Amino acid sequence: GHRRDRSAQAARRVAGLNRTPPSKHSTDKDNPMIKPHGSETLNPLYVEDDAARAALLSEAESLPSLLLNSAAAANAVMMAGGYFNPLTGYMNKADALSVAKDLKTTDGLFWPVPVMNLTQTTDVQTGKLALRDPNVDGNPILAVMDVAAVETVSDDELKTMAEQIFGTLDGDHPGVSTFLSLGNTLLSGSIQVLNFSYFAADFPATFRTAVEIRNEIAERGWNKVVAFQTRNPIHRAHEYLCKCTQEITDGLLIHPLVGETKPGDIPADVRMDCYQALIKEYFVPERTLLSVMPAAMRYAGPREAILHALVRKNYGVTHFIVGRDHAGVGSYYGTYDAQHIFNEIDLDNLGIIPLMFEHSGWSKTYGGMVSFKSFPKMEGDIVFLSGTKVREMLEAGERPPMEFSRPEVADVLIGAAKNNKLFV
Amino acid sequence: GHRRDRSAQAARRVAGLNRTPPSKHSTDKDNPMIKPHGSETLNPLYVEDDAARAALLSEAESLPSLLLNSAAAANAVMMAGGYFNPLTGYMNKADALSVAKDLKTTDGLFWPVPVMNLTQTTDVQTGKLALRDPNVDGNPILAVMDVAAVETVSDDELKTMAEQIFGTLDGDHPGVSTFLSLGNTLLSGSIQVLNFSYFAADFPATFRTAVEIRNEIAERGWNKVVAFQTRNPIHRAHEYLCKCTQEITDGLLIHPLVGETKPGDIPADVRMDCYQALIKEYFVPERTLLSVMPAAMRYAGPREAILHALVRKNYGVTHFIVGRDHAGVGSYYGTYDAQHIFNEIDLDNLGIIPLMFEHSGWSKTYGGMVSFKSFPKMEGDIVFLSGTKVREMLEAGERPPMEFSRPEVADVLIGAAKNNKLFV
Repeated sequence: GHRRDRSAQAARRVAGLNRTPPSKHSTDKDNPMIKPHGSETLNPLYVEDDAARAALLSEAESLPSLLLNSAAAANAVMMAGGYFNPLTGYMNKADALSVAKDLKTTDGLFWPVPVMNLTQTTDVQTGKLALRDPNVDGNPILAVMDVAAVETVSDDELKTMAEQIFGTLDGDHPGVSTFLSLGNTLLSGSIQVLNFSYFAADFPATFRTAVEIRNEIAERGWNKVVAFQTRNPIHRAHEYLCKCTQEITDGLLIHPLVGETKPGDIPADVRMDCYQALIKEYFVPERTLLSVMPAAMRYAGPREAILHALVRKNYGVTHFIVGRDHAGVGSYYGTYDAQHIFNEIDLDNLGIIPLMFEHSGWSKTYGGMVSFKSFPKMEGDIVFLSGTKVREMLEAGERPPMEFSRPEVADVLIGAAKNNKLFV
Repeated sequence: GHRRDRSAQAARRVAGLNRTPPSKHSTDKDNPMIKPHGSETLNPLYVEDDAARAALLSEAESLPSLLLNSAAAANAVMMAGGYFNPLTGYMNKADALSVAKDLKTTDGLFWPVPVMNLTQTTDVQTGKLALRDPNVDGNPILAVMDVAAVETVSDDELKTMAEQIFGTLDGDHPGVSTFLSLGNTLLSGSIQVLNFSYFAADFPATFRTAVEIRNEIAERGWNKVVAFQTRNPIHRAHEYLCKCTQEITDGLLIHPLVGETKPGDIPADVRMDCYQALIKEYFVPERTLLSVMPAAMRYAGPREAILHALVRKNYGVTHFIVGRDHAGVGSYYGTYDAQHIFNEIDLDNLGIIPLMFEHSGWSKTYGGMVSFKSFPKMEGDIVFLSGTKVREMLEAGERPPMEFSRPEVADVLIGAAKNNKLFV
């Protein structure tokens, strides 16, 4: 259990989420929404029926089992919730190679990053296999896989894919080093998922499946919906991006990634408290949703930006914010690589509209938030603090200037720093 | 001549406009742009070739001639510049009735408002006719029309059209009263235009044809271009709309309507000085264009909002700002009627993306510009002044609060008020 300062219900209210049943407005006919990726309706792989799920779990206990790697487990949850629609399971070698090379499966489905179940075990057969969750104590069964193929991926093939996906083979890149260490045995085939790993329990107020988010959007009658992906607290600059897009849409989904991130990133539960504090004071409840995305970070820059945009379509989202160095790490990607890639793909395949933003900040001369796009005198004029400086201030119990960070957000971070929870 | 405080060249620099020749980037192949309405390439009706134009003018002098009404003259200029592409002249009765009723011509071309040459004269024949300009001293010949049909439109038919276009028959509506007084004889047929009326001379720094704006956009390599239509000075609220859209596009076309407006509206030349003062201080030259739209206001609310959006496509613009009560007057239209109509039409016919905005203002609590969409505590919190209050302040030589109006803009208006030029 993470720290919860308020009841899940109250937090849900702050998050703007209601577990209301789908209304008559939530049908495609009454309120046509953006279609899921690659299919007419969402096909979440979570076994919804209680009896069927119990039966499958019971059967799974007697099956051979495999401990998943952390990324594969997060991907199972993404498929469970319908987020990775229309995937029905882990990709086979031909599809994985094709996706890495050409951003599409052998069937032509647009997809930017292979979704693989790689393992170091070589002792696996085709047929049913229980998949165990590495991220929950006791490694309970997360899903049952119908293994259709067991294939070997050579180190050379892994390196080729890594270079295609990450644009680098540098072992210091956190995505690359993980990717190359997962193993050479590739299990492909469909899965049925039994739970949502730790996400449902750890984020009771804000965890939702793609189906639930779709229903909520339909219920609210939103047509244009923008999603903001984040793995950081929202300071003024990112708040500004959210506000600009909120002006031209019906609603905003603040959609933090809460799966595995790298050391040095701020823990998800601390971030959630930041988001809720910010939303409570500065966002319109009727036009704002907060929910978590149970994905792991890959730090794949441009490719991951495409993935982040694509999966939001499955949530019923129509527009997606792409800032500078989206999903980047270190200096592996150019500042705008993750924006330029949207010019290189067929946006009809993507189906969701990317909204590209520049570096922004508070300009004293302008008297407001601006970017290089909107204000000619921004250089040298804006209130800017380095990440290191912000950490130092927070750890010293000091709020950054309010032009940089809202005091409500700063106070959450200062509190976390006091409890040694800021950077774990 | 209007007052010009600076040379046309300097003003052009401020406006961000260069009369650069089309570069290799301006071809469709190198930089595919949004297509004009209803055709592959723009077909401006201005006779570009000097010799051909001189010959036509010479011929026109011996033709029978007709003094146009002011709206028909502005529409000739709109056709001359390619703004009303693909129209080749004034609509016949069947097309005008069809457009008024169904927003499309008898051929199925999407068009929201009839473009007619109505006259009180009954003594007109088919064949060539010189059209004289009511808005320039001496009524010089503006265009040569090849009159294909002379039809009578009954008072009842005019009233039906007026009700369809304006949604009212109230004689106090400035558009309706003008529309019903134009006459019952409808001349239809193609036109060739000899000049741009007073617009080219009165706005030397900022008058451009749609072709020229397209070339400028191509030259700058802009892909996403947003246009802001205005018939008022830009205060902070409208500046904010421009800024929000500038963040997500490559460039902004500030595109004031400078044709005929109603008594009480601020004169176009005063407004142009406001725009230039604002752009100079607060907009990025590389991302901002200022040009004039030589159309007359009809105050037709929703129908005119569609027209304003549609014609911008011909300029190479991809996005269009629609605020509250766009093109409205008095209380004839609901605040959001001009936004809702975009949900009722087929956006594929429109082809340009409308961006809908709410009422916005400076919130002291938020510390910035917000709208009802973006900030929950806006009510009672924002800096708001009535139009009457603003006029009083300006006429007394007082700047409104800087949260309402930039001092640079206020000073232009105060200067105009001192010269009795603020409201004519």
